[in-house]
Amino acid sequence: MRVDDAHIVERPDTLAVEEPLEIRADGRSLAVTMRTPGHDVDLAIGFLLTEGLVAPDGVHSAINCADNVVDVSLTEPLSDDVAARGFYVSSSCGICGKASIDAVTTVQRWRVADDVFTIDPDVLISLPDQLREAQKTFDRTGGLHAAGLFTRDGKLQCIREDVGRHNAVDKVAGWALTNSRLPLRETILQVSGRASFELVQKALMAGIPAMAAVSAPSSLAVEMATGAGMTLVGFLRGTSFNVYAGAGRLDLKPST
Amino acid sequence: MRVDDAHIVERPDTLAVEEPLEIRADGRSLAVTMRTPGHDVDLAIGFLLTEGLVAPDGVHSAINCADNVVDVSLTEPLSDDVAARGFYVSSSCGICGKASIDAVTTVQRWRVADDVFTIDPDVLISLPDQLREAQKTFDRTGGLHAAGLFTRDGKLQCIREDVGRHNAVDKVAGWALTNSRLPLRETILQVSGRASFELVQKALMAGIPAMAAVSAPSSLAVEMATGAGMTLVGFLRGTSFNVYAGAGRLDLKPST
Repeated sequence: MRVDDAHIVERPDTLAVEEPLEIRADGRSLAVTMRTPGHDVDLAIGFLLTEGLVAPDGVHSAINCADNVVDVSLTEPLSDDVAARGFYVSSSCGICGKASIDAVTTVQRWRVADDVFTIDPDVLISLPDQLREAQKTFDRTGGLHAAGLFTRDGKLQCIREDVGRHNAVDKVAGWALTNSRLPLRETILQVSGRASFELVQKALMAGIPAMAAVSAPSSLAVEMATGAGMTLVGFLRGTSFNVYAGAGRLDLKPST
Repeated sequence: MRVDDAHIVERPDTLAVEEPLEIRADGRSLAVTMRTPGHDVDLAIGFLLTEGLVAPDGVHSAINCADNVVDVSLTEPLSDDVAARGFYVSSSCGICGKASIDAVTTVQRWRVADDVFTIDPDVLISLPDQLREAQKTFDRTGGLHAAGLFTRDGKLQCIREDVGRHNAVDKVAGWALTNSRLPLRETILQVSGRASFELVQKALMAGIPAMAAVSAPSSLAVEMATGAGMTLVGFLRGTSFNVYAGAGRLDLKPST
């Protein structure tokens, strides 16, 4: 029912779909995440990767073994220790159940600080529009977050959507693992919302050296990006943006 | 560093603070959540309540026992079973680690469907502005979600902010438990962002009969609100809004 200045009309509306997905490794249930169906195998694999539960070469295959269940076959079985840790890790928050920030930062596999390249500000400025144009669903529901992986030249490599922004990033990470693209050197991850610690952490676990968000980053997101040598951009709107970390990669020469 | 059409300026910026909080019950670690410091005791108590781990009269006291750690003393100890479930539940997602939606819906303590009252659309329309005015931090960082609890007459009872929207709602729920306000009959919870399943679930666990969001609800949020008899409003902006569930509580008489 749409109410507009006391004008009332009943009409169909399209909603962003949110359903639980159970993620299993070798038949063992690890986590349940609320997600938008679609690219479920990417999501499950990406989750295992960005939570540090499997290595980039640790996935043998993965199938949608039942409605809302994905089972990932691993090349080496999870240790009981890791499987237990997996349980504690939440789907929505990369650090839930972990005792400290250190527990997250120690599992990074790549040093993005060593990924030296230059980003043209004009390329950066083009990303939100590119992301939005690629988000066919967005305009209909207004309810989906998006994550888009771009080359340093601004070419879209992969876009994924979800009600949970962390899931959108995990779907991109899973796509990268499946397509042997890890680490994702010389790429920029554009996200539709805010930049939390969790998103920075997940991006780093996929070797992504630069992230740009339409909205604000959190304090810990900036801290982690700075420590890791990641370029972190926020409030990227129109022709302006804020650089919170890793400004060295930006080719910033005032045009005057 | 602020970049605006090739004008570059370095300036201080205020960031939304994000730090981990460990939630303990009787000394036992249950979960770690990424949150914005402030009202940590409310958050810990609200988390235990909305995750169904404690009854409304189940909290004896709670203290900030260390930096980023809150320990809640319970009137009755958690069973090993419940404590283990608590571990699996994530801070960011009400259902993480649970096997199915049913596992969540069975723990509701109150039937909000029986909470019969009328909401004036003019009151509803006033809520986003009221929430925003009360959000002193918001205008500085752009990075905080807010949850505001209002009476049916539009009087603000409690407002809480957080980088995580679920935490903002948990802080409100914890405030309500501490102040013996449960169940929160004849109230409206206004949230700053989208309405996910998780937020609807947490609100229902505090007995809140109506929720209004500035942005879109998810499919499962609408499904759950409909099933529970909760009024769910989305896209509440200016003088218009969409009613997705529980329209019976709205006093909608076209003014012509």
